[in-house]
Amino acid sequence: MSTETGSRTSGLPPCAVPVSMQVMAYHGSAPKPDTRALAAEAPVNLVYGSVPHAVMMATPADLEDFAYGFSLTEGIVDSVDEIRATRVEMAEDGLRLHVDLAPGRLREHLARKRAISGRTGCGVCGIEDLAQLPRAGGRAASEVRIALPAIARALSELDRAQVLGAQTRAVHAAAWARRDGSLAAVREDVGRHNALDKLIGALMRAGTPADEGFLVITSRCSFEMVEKAARLGAAVIVAISAPTSLALERARSYGLTLCAIARADTVTVFTGAERLTTGG
Amino acid sequence: MSTETGSRTSGLPPCAVPVSMQVMAYHGSAPKPDTRALAAEAPVNLVYGSVPHAVMMATPADLEDFAYGFSLTEGIVDSVDEIRATRVEMAEDGLRLHVDLAPGRLREHLARKRAISGRTGCGVCGIEDLAQLPRAGGRAASEVRIALPAIARALSELDRAQVLGAQTRAVHAAAWARRDGSLAAVREDVGRHNALDKLIGALMRAGTPADEGFLVITSRCSFEMVEKAARLGAAVIVAISAPTSLALERARSYGLTLCAIARADTVTVFTGAERLTTGG
Repeated sequence: MSTETGSRTSGLPPCAVPVSMQVMAYHGSAPKPDTRALAAEAPVNLVYGSVPHAVMMATPADLEDFAYGFSLTEGIVDSVDEIRATRVEMAEDGLRLHVDLAPGRLREHLARKRAISGRTGCGVCGIEDLAQLPRAGGRAASEVRIALPAIARALSELDRAQVLGAQTRAVHAAAWARRDGSLAAVREDVGRHNALDKLIGALMRAGTPADEGFLVITSRCSFEMVEKAARLGAAVIVAISAPTSLALERARSYGLTLCAIARADTVTVFTGAERLTTGG
Repeated sequence: MSTETGSRTSGLPPCAVPVSMQVMAYHGSAPKPDTRALAAEAPVNLVYGSVPHAVMMATPADLEDFAYGFSLTEGIVDSVDEIRATRVEMAEDGLRLHVDLAPGRLREHLARKRAISGRTGCGVCGIEDLAQLPRAGGRAASEVRIALPAIARALSELDRAQVLGAQTRAVHAAAWARRDGSLAAVREDVGRHNALDKLIGALMRAGTPADEGFLVITSRCSFEMVEKAARLGAAVIVAISAPTSLALERARSYGLTLCAIARADTVTVFTGAERLTTGG
């Protein structure tokens, strides 16, 4: 039951470590000096074949995972082997995240980029026209079954695994849980889309099959989160906050299981209850 | 002390009303049928002069406010009178929000759109290159003073004013508080950037001076939220969650007051304490 989440913080690049600062906290009108850790946030410019593609505001950690996950969920690659290398470069205004694509993929990407406006980030907000809305397509075929106690276990493990979250109270987390609820990977970011993209990249790189466990996200489950999950091939999403109407609609249309408003002892199933069992 | 927040829900367009649905809640492994209201989320396509500009995933309420606020914070207009009219059109895949600009402004907008890729949404994630990062510029000149009890009052009023939030637990709110802490306007949205853009639009349309009160946001305070506040001309931001490193950096550089991790009885000041007083 190894999880690689424990060692991750010590490996944060210096620019991603939360910055401690002196602040003044007022309880009523009584001032009290306090120290707070701020979540690092930096512009990260994804660059494919030396052509800048999109700027994301992100926590500058796990950027290699981010490069993989973003490239998959944005439809720039279909599989892990279409990325040959990634490289982070410090720039004056932020970071450049270079992604070296397989030559055929790069040509396709640049050709498509000329034809349509670049989609970015949440998969939506860089698009100009309704016709460009993403749709992962396909129905989830996974016959995985998840026991309710496994969900409770994953939530409890995730509580302890949110290293940046505990320090800064300003980041989201996305985690991958095995069928028994033990966590295989956790990623954190100031942006919930980024946290999920980083997790997806980590799973791609580790070769983790996405139909044998479940996703846990600490944030609201909106339409784009469901799209990213479907693109990964996951069949079960557990969100700590509530889903939106369109998130539910897409989850239904892809045949996903969507649980939300998940707490230590309760979880609400919005669609796909057939994948849940009460047993251990 | 009139506030227009009370009557807003009854005026929601049908597509924006939360959808009630039957769900199954598990307490431990005991299933219990329950009813949940889902926050409506729809693709909203902003269209300037019949040219589609950006698609935002938004709660389809207060869209006229959204048109004004988005246009200001994205730098498409500089003032309320540069927008002549707005109109919402139902489309097959979502909503089209037509914004009718003054002719000179439209020409400028379309010329600039041809020259650079369209920025969207959070002000960041539609941009392709680091050099395009937004910067509102200028230092806040406001000499407004806000008493700590006024902040406590605004937070308490906002708790009660989050109509959609209470029903769905899946939306953010942005509010404008007068100097005494009474709320002048509240807007809610599934997206925190949208909630703030809607509020800004409402203030523009009402002619509310932005240097005589303060902003309250229920969400995390990231860099883009500070940029939007600066673009509005607000000098004091109170966020319920924590700021990021870059949000603080920008707030400092604009001379804004940034309070965060705000609760009924405590608030933490990150920068600009000179605008806060303990008195009533």
